[in-house]
This record gives sequence, C-alpha cells and structure tokens, in this order.
Amino acid sequence: MTLAELAALVGGEVQGDPQAKIDGIATLEGAKNGDLVFVLEKNNLSAALKSPASALVVIKGTDTGKKSAILVKNPRLALARILKEFTPPLFKVEPGVHPTAVIDNTAKLGKDVSVGALSYIGPEVIIGDESIIHPQVTLYPGVKLGKRVIIHSGARIGVDGYGFAPAGNIHEKIPQIGSVVIGDDVEIYANTCIARGTIGDTVIGRGAKIDNLTHIAHNCVIGEDCAITALVGFAGSVTFGNHVTVGGQAGFNGHITVGENTVVMAKSGVTKDIPANSVISGFPAIDHKVDLKYQAALRKLLETK
Amino acid sequence: MTLAELAALVGGEVQGDPQAKIDGIATLEGAKNGDLVFVLEKNNLSAALKSPASALVVIKGTDTGKKSAILVKNPRLALARILKEFTPPLFKVEPGVHPTAVIDNTAKLGKDVSVGALSYIGPEVIIGDESIIHPQVTLYPGVKLGKRVIIHSGARIGVDGYGFAPAGNIHEKIPQIGSVVIGDDVEIYANTCIARGTIGDTVIGRGAKIDNLTHIAHNCVIGEDCAITALVGFAGSVTFGNHVTVGGQAGFNGHITVGENTVVMAKSGVTKDIPANSVISGFPAIDHKVDLKYQAALRKLLETK
Amino acid sequence: MTLAELAALVGGEVQGDPQAKIDGIATLEGAKNGDLVFVLEKNNLSAALKSPASALVVIKGTDTGKKSAILVKNPRLALARILKEFTPPLFKVEPGVHPTAVIDNTAKLGKDVSVGALSYIGPEVIIGDESIIHPQVTLYPGVKLGKRVIIHSGARIGVDGYGFAPAGNIHEKIPQIGSVVIGDDVEIYANTCIARGTIGDTVIGRGAKIDNLTHIAHNCVIGEDCAITALVGFAGSVTFGNHVTVGGQAGFNGHITVGENTVVMAKSGVTKDIPANSVISGFPAIDHKVDLKYQAALRKLLETK
Repeated sequence: MTLAELAALVGGEVQGDPQAKIDGIATLEGAKNGDLVFVLEKNNLSAALKSPASALVVIKGTDTGKKSAILVKNPRLALARILKEFTPPLFKVEPGVHPTAVIDNTAKLGKDVSVGALSYIGPEVIIGDESIIHPQVTLYPGVKLGKRVIIHSGARIGVDGYGFAPAGNIHEKIPQIGSVVIGDDVEIYANTCIARGTIGDTVIGRGAKIDNLTHIAHNCVIGEDCAITALVGFAGSVTFGNHVTVGGQAGFNGHITVGENTVVMAKSGVTKDIPANSVISGFPAIDHKVDLKYQAALRKLLETK
Repeated sequence: MTLAELAALVGGEVQGDPQAKIDGIATLEGAKNGDLVFVLEKNNLSAALKSPASALVVIKGTDTGKKSAILVKNPRLALARILKEFTPPLFKVEPGVHPTAVIDNTAKLGKDVSVGALSYIGPEVIIGDESIIHPQVTLYPGVKLGKRVIIHSGARIGVDGYGFAPAGNIHEKIPQIGSVVIGDDVEIYANTCIARGTIGDTVIGRGAKIDNLTHIAHNCVIGEDCAITALVGFAGSVTFGNHVTVGGQAGFNGHITVGENTVVMAKSGVTKDIPANSVISGFPAIDHKVDLKYQAALRKLLETK
Repeated sequence: MTLAELAALVGGEVQGDPQAKIDGIATLEGAKNGDLVFVLEKNNLSAALKSPASALVVIKGTDTGKKSAILVKNPRLALARILKEFTPPLFKVEPGVHPTAVIDNTAKLGKDVSVGALSYIGPEVIIGDESIIHPQVTLYPGVKLGKRVIIHSGARIGVDGYGFAPAGNIHEKIPQIGSVVIGDDVEIYANTCIARGTIGDTVIGRGAKIDNLTHIAHNCVIGEDCAITALVGFAGSVTFGNHVTVGGQAGFNGHITVGENTVVMAKSGVTKDIPANSVISGFPAIDHKVDLKYQAALRKLLETK
C-alpha cells in the first residue's frame, strides 16, 4: 500500500511522499527499508527518525524532518486500525464450531459465533452474536455472554464461588446458585477464572478487558470499559464503577467499592472503598501522590540511619 | 416452602408467621416480596429490615421487629443447608464419565465418580468414591484422590515439581518421581496447580479447600481443613498444620512450617517457621497486631515529615 | 544396584562398602534401611547421619563417619542423574501423538515429538525434535518451539497480547500479529501464559525454565537459561539477559531491561532497568543488601516508637 492509502485508513495527514510504498509494519528495533514504524512514546522519536524505516506514524505536531510520516491525533488507535488491515489470515478466527468442542444441547449460540477446539459449553449457556470462544475454554452451566465477546484459551467462566460455612473445624460447602453475566465486547484472556455468584450474579460490564490469570470471585460487579491486567485477585462482592484500570498483581478485599475512572497501580492491596477518579498504590492502597511522598520521606530517613 | 419448613431444615426458630410462603433466596440488594434473605454480617441488619424481603435468617438473639425471621446459631451454615435444597438441577453434577474424557485404562475410579468432558486421567490414578472431576482437568500419572473430592476445571494435579540442578550455566532437570496424595473432602478450584513430589509425595489433607490459580510446589504437606484462597504461591516442602487459613496472593518460602490454626493475611510473604495459632501479615510476615502497630507508627512518622 | 554402580553413574567416590545394595531413593524423613538419601543442604547432615538410610550422597570433603556414602562435587546434579535411572516407566513420556490431540494440518512436528491428550496445536506451529507437549496445552497459530522443549498441561502459548488503543472511553483492540519463539531445552510449566508479540515476537531463550501460573506479556525477550518461578508477572516488552533468576510472585514493569545473572527475589516489583549481576528485592526493587539494611533500620526505628 502507499503511504497515502494508509493515511486515508486512519484519517491521517501525509508528510513527505504520499506515493511511497509500505511493505510492512515493524517494531522500532526490527525496522528496515519499506517498513512503517509507529511512534507511541515521545522518547522513541529520535531513534525512529534514525531507523531505516521508510515512514513513521507520529502524533500531530511532530516534526519528522525529511522522514516521511503519517500525522494522526492518536497513534495507538492508528496502530489498531492499520494492523487490522495487515492481520494475516493465520490469526483470523472464522465463525463456526470446531467438531471437538463439547456443547450442551440446551446452550444457545448467536449468529456467527466461533467455538474453538476442545472447549466445553455447559447447559443453558447463552453466547451472543459474533463472539469468539478460543480452544479449551470452560463455560460452566448457565453463563451468559453478550455480543462480540472474546474468551481466550483456558479461561474458566462460572466456576463455583469459594464459599464455605464453618461447621466445627469442617468447611461445609455453600452451594453456588448464581451465574456469571458478561456484557458485549468484553475480552477475557487465557486461564482467567470468574466465579459464579453465590446468590445473584457475578457481572462483567460491557467493554471490560481482563488479562491472563486473573481471579474474579463470586458476586463481583465490574463496570463498563474496565481494564484489568494479569494476576489480579478479587475477593467476593467487589464493585467497580466504569472505566477502572488495574495494574498487574493488585488485589482487592471483599465487599468494597471502587469508583469510576480510578487507576489502581500494580501490586496494590485495596482494603477499603475508593472514591471515583482516584489514583492509588501501595498496601494498604492510598492516594498515589501521598504514597510517593511517604516513600521518598522513608527512603531519606533510612539513608541517614 | 413455608418459613416453618425452612426453619426445620436448619434447626432454627421461627419469629413471625410460620406459614409465610418463601419463593426464593435473594441477596440483600436483589430482594423482593416472597424472598428469604440471609444476614451474615451484623452491619447488614438494618438494610435487611428495610428491604422488601418477606423473611430474614439471622443469628439467635437478633431483634427483627415485625419482620418474619428464622433464628439460628450459625446463619452461614443455614445458608449452606438451605441452598442445598434450592440448588437447581442445572448445577447438580451427576455421576458418570463423559464420553470425551480420556481415562487411562490403568486408572481406578471409585463408585459414583463424575468425570467431566475433556478431562485427562493418567495411568495409575486413583479417584475415591463420589468424587467430581469437572471438565478439562488434568490428573497426571499416579495421582491419588480420596472420597468426595471436587476438582474444578483446568486444575493440574501432579505436574512435575520445578526441580533443577546447576550444571554450569545449564539447569539440568531433576526427574520428579513422587506423587500427589489428596485426602477426602478436598476441593480444588479452577486452574490451580499442584506439583508432584521430587521423591516422596505432595500431600493435601482431608477437607482442605484451595481456591483458583494457586500454586503448590513439590513436597508441600498441607494439613486437614486448611482454607487457601486464590493466587497463593508455595515454594517446595512447606508444611502446614491443620486448619490454617491463607488470604489471597500470599506466598511461602520453601522448607518452612506453619503451625495449626494460623491465619495468614492476604499478600503476606512468609519467610520462616510460624508457631500454631498465629495471625500474621506483611512481608516478611510478622504477628499481625505488631504489623498494624508498626504501620500506624510509620504512617504517623511520615505524616509529620 | 550397588553403591559402587551408583557412584559410577555420577563420577562419585565411595566411602564404606562399595557392594552395599541400594533398593531405592528416599527423602530424609521417609528413609529406611536399604535407601540412599541425598544431603543437599549442610544442615541436614546430622539428621541424615542418624537416619536408617543405608548410604548418603554428600558433597566432597564431608565426613560421614561409619555411614556409607558417595562423595560428589555437586550432590544436586548427582540427584538428577541418579533419579533419571530410577524413574519408573509411569512417568516416562513416549513419543507419539495422542488420538484426541487436535493438530492443524499445516503444523510441523519434528522427530520423536510427543503430543498429549486433548492438546490443541494451531496452524503453522512448528515443534522441534524430541519436544513433549503434555495434555491440554494450547499452541496458538504460528508459535515456534525449539528442540527438547517441554510444555506442561494448560500452558497457553501465543495468546493475544493485551493491547488496546483508547477510542474515547472504549478500548479498541490492537491486533496482535507477532508470534512466540521458544528456544531449545525450554521447559514451561502448567497453566503459564505467554502472549504473542504485537508486531515482532515474544522470545524465550534456550534453556529457560518457567514455573506454573506465570504471565509473560507481548514482546518480552527472555534470555538463555533464565529460571522464573511461579505466579510471576511481566508487563510488555521486558528484556532479560541470560541466566536471570526470579522468585515467586515477582512483577516487572513494561519496557525495562534486566541484566544477565541478576537474581530477583520473591514478590519484588521491578520498576526500572537493572544492571547485570544484581541481587534485588522489594517494591520498588533495589539492591538486596541495601533493602535488608533499610528493613533492619526501619524495624529498629518502629520498635522504639
């Protein structure tokens, strides 16, 4: 494709030769002549300018000198849109049910759903249109998925919540009769576990993205467009507002509420309700600026000991 | 069912109309007329009293005013017992082996065992009576399970321990020729991994409950009725007494012993032997009361900086 | 076997009766007459000497009195070599593809590869000679494995990287069109997830060993002979030199470099580039000796409050 054609795909403005041929997309380190490189962080710009790449995608207002470029408002979004064009057929998942998938005959699959090899879809599961279930997923009985949901390999949706009643020293199992309800456009990554509600449902809001190896306990309610990264742990009945962002290996006490647009930094341990629009870190998690101030003061104190 | 019938199920005492009809169990938030709501925490009582629920289950000695109630000694246990009655057939697992399960012909299954779809049961595995193996579980060769064991989807029991010998810069694999022995009434949740012993066995004591995504290394010995939550990590040869409780994302150094009835709080890092009946937190984990005192002192110190 | 024959296997020197019969290998705790016990830690020596074991394997220069022994330079390596001889057939994996494995017809398997039950091998995957894929593994499209690679159950290799572009409040998926390239002699344990690169590949160097439930994000480059234990989390584009060792539950920020031979202690949070030959701990991770000094100073300070 030409630089002009690529720019048109993303509503960008060409700087340099619009007819320049682009053969592929490359990382900064791997770039060679003919490649297009995306500059997602400012401090990669000078290396990108010196690279053999034929053209760059940069944020509007960037001066790329003699290097051809596409100027866009949001280079990361341009990357998403252009990679969609360049995705090799190898990585495209077509609709259809693999013959080795086990699907209960009371499950209901929407239009153009894909179910990968060796997945298990239990009774009374509902899967919305255009959803993709990768190989070896478990959807326990009664789980409900919206449209365009993507579930990666080994995710376990609807496993029993961890609920026990003390009966002397014995832990007596509390049956878990709620379900898991997942909104449209949710993506759940590999080997993540989402427990069904004890009574009532565990809910994952529209557009939420949950990375690998995360544990979401019974009766959590995750808001829309939340971004939760890997190895995060939730105790039961945590409630998230919309658009909460969580770093890796963070953890949440049970029965707390995290307000919308909050950012929880990696490895935080959140022990109490958090108001909207917070940025928190540490264990117990507190305002990130205060945490940084405390850390600096502590370091200073200890250095002088 | 009537309130009186439900009370009889749990040995409870009725307050209000014993003939009141109960249509379902509900969460406090979701309760409507006809519902029974369990008050498991004291601070939910006033909301429960104001809810449209027809009746509450409360701890003996609670004054519920005009609201009908079942009074019991242990509301959580009453929840377990009543939910057992209300469990829809959808969530009941019947004995039998799914035709897509792969079971080595030298494995031995007890009476009334259930093996879910696409599970793999290796050679010389033994599964006790009435155990439930959910879909897509792996039981590696030689693993032994007691009676009424429940293994959730994606758990990997008997994977090789992580054992290597240095041979120059190379890590040379130490064959792992022990096994995993799991007692009666153990429940292991989704995607949890339990490694086989190097020599000798990894042992999970009767009645232990191990939540999702936990890693138990080779030659650990977990006592009876231990409760281990999600994303917990064990290095090799950790020994637990009975009835140890572990919060999420805690971790244990190798070759240490944790005494019975100890409570290990979430995210603790346990680095040394812990006596029985301890409550510990922090990293390195120390007595929880001391940890709290230190944290308070530190906060005070830093606030004044 | 006789003590002399065992000593010959590992190039060791016999002390005591070379014709003593050894029936089995045992742990120190489980040892009985006829057993060989390995003394891997100095502080186990006195217990080993008192045990009923017929002979010990000890490091050269150890005085075992009247107890028969094999003296070797590296007892752990001797353990590896001798257990290889003693491994029961039960734990030996033979080459061959299980009939329930699903292998795309464009995948290429080398000589003497083993693929376990219910594994899924996607299109254009390449697996080198003598590799072992245990049951229920996922190799996503295009993943490349070297020779003698071992992948344990439930590992997910080549899952999409977690990459999104902000489009208002919505997270728009960035297609992930790179792959995962795994070197010779790598071992990846159960339920570990390795994401494909966004552009370019995620790379695991020759001889690296990665324990259970670890998450390696897109475009990480792990050096040769790295040893990464369980529940470790990597953000995107982390680069490791050779022979880096990582303790359990440690985490790494994106786009950082860790120099060769570095040791990262358990639960560390690594936030910036680390030079070669470091030993680091804490969060943010710093030099381990400094961290210990700070911890001691802090403890002292708080004890006096």
